[in-house]
Parts: sequence; structure tokens; C-alpha cells
Amino acid sequence: MNLDKPYNISVYTIVLNDKGELLLLKRSKDSNNNPGKWDLPGGKMELDETLKEALMREVREETGISIVPGEVAGYATYELPERKVIAIIVDGGYVTPSVKLSHEHTEYSWVPLDDVLEMPMLAPYLKDFFRRFVNENKEPF
Amino acid sequence: MNLDKPYNISVYTIVLNDKGELLLLKRSKDSNNNPGKWDLPGGKMELDETLKEALMREVREETGISIVPGEVAGYATYELPERKVIAIIVDGGYVTPSVKLSHEHTEYSWVPLDDVLEMPMLAPYLKDFFRRFVNENKEPF
Repeated sequence: MNLDKPYNISVYTIVLNDKGELLLLKRSKDSNNNPGKWDLPGGKMELDETLKEALMREVREETGISIVPGEVAGYATYELPERKVIAIIVDGGYVTPSVKLSHEHTEYSWVPLDDVLEMPMLAPYLKDFFRRFVNENKEPF
Repeated sequence: MNLDKPYNISVYTIVLNDKGELLLLKRSKDSNNNPGKWDLPGGKMELDETLKEALMREVREETGISIVPGEVAGYATYELPERKVIAIIVDGGYVTPSVKLSHEHTEYSWVPLDDVLEMPMLAPYLKDFFRRFVNENKEPF
């Protein structure tokens, strides 16, 4: 099959603290994916990896936090120079807020859910996801 | 997190014969998902299964054919009574056309790619996928 630009699948996690605030990470400025933008913990799923493994691995690498993946909350898509991406966003549950960043991010923030869509520098695919999420769920969280 | 209706992830495969015709399967009338409609081989991915395993398992169960999953060609979404579904569609390559159906389907057909979008009773999510696919790839296949 002749695909001009195939898709990758990436997995992202919604992690909340005990106040119900959402964990966002600011991507490094030299990232090839949404540089300098606020993003959810997550990344590329490998073909030989389960969704659960990919989610747990990415969140641990990027934040030091161990999560237990729950339901799939939604999806969004975006485009990189070489690939298109299907982003699958999964409920990672409530965690103790003790974050250790990797080199991929420069900052983190716990954000009240009502304020997420107003955040400056939010990754555009997350605007799509959260807008759809609010439409699909009467009580956003 | 309070999800009114979470998503499942399902995986579907584009399988071509040596004439470049696409394999479609007609779903049983008592299926809870697109009953009586033409569909791609595929089905629900389990959380503890890789994309590759899920694709190979579903195609083998539904057609008796062994495939080697390639690139991700696209996605679409649809809704069931209890769940929403993110459908991920993957290139399954070229196969020898020797199909053995399971109880899930009543008929199969090899369809020239130019005719797919005109098929009566094509599952609606596949119309979305193929329309997007044609837009994204100058040479559809």
C-alpha cells in the first residue's frame, strides 16, 4: 500500500492530584513535537507494546510517577513533518503529586480543570481533545 | 474520572489480493456493531495485547488468513450503545485469497478499490476512513 505519510499511535495520560487538578508538562523548546507547549505525559506506542505498558512507561519516564491505566477518555490527531499521529488519551487516576521531570520537559503545573482550555501555549491537539471531552461528558471529570 | 461513555480501541486491517482488490466481510444481522454491513476484518484490542497481536488474531479468527501488520493507514470513530470506539486501520499487505469465515460474518467480497466508497451497506465509519484516506494519499493505494 502506498501511504504518503503513515500514522504513529501515541498514548497520553490524564493524571489528577487529590484536589482534582490536572498534571501538564511543558515541552522542551527543541522538541520536534509541540516545542514549548503544555502537554500531557505520554508518547509513542511501539508496535510490540501493549497500551497499558506504553502508558505506564511514558508516565514513569517523564514524571517518575507510577500510574494504573483506566478507561480510554478520548482521542485527537496531529501532524509532524514525517508522520501523522493518532493520540489516545487514557484516564491515569489520582496520584500523589511528586513529579521528577526528564530532559523532555522544562516545567510542570497542576491546573484546575476549569482553566485548562484557557491555558496559553496548550498543545493544539489537546484543545481538540478537551473540547470533545466536555461535549461527550456532562460532568467533565 | 467520570466518563459518561468511555472508548474502546478496535483494530482493522486492509488486506489486498494480487489484483489489488480489498477484502470486505459482511457482518451477521445479529451483530451489535454495524449488523448486516460490509466491514474490514478486525475487532476489539485488549488492554494487555499489542496492536500487532490484536490485528493478527482478529484477521486469523475472522478469515483464516495470516497477515503481517504494516503501517497505520488511518482511523475513524463510531458509537455503540455502551461504548464509543476508536477504530485504527492498519495495512495488512497482500495475501493469497483463501478465506474461511467465522460465525461473525455471512459473506465476503474482494472489491476493486475504486468501487469501495460506492458499495451499498458499507459500514459508515469506513466511509469516513476511506474519504480521509483518499484526501491524505495522492495515490489511494
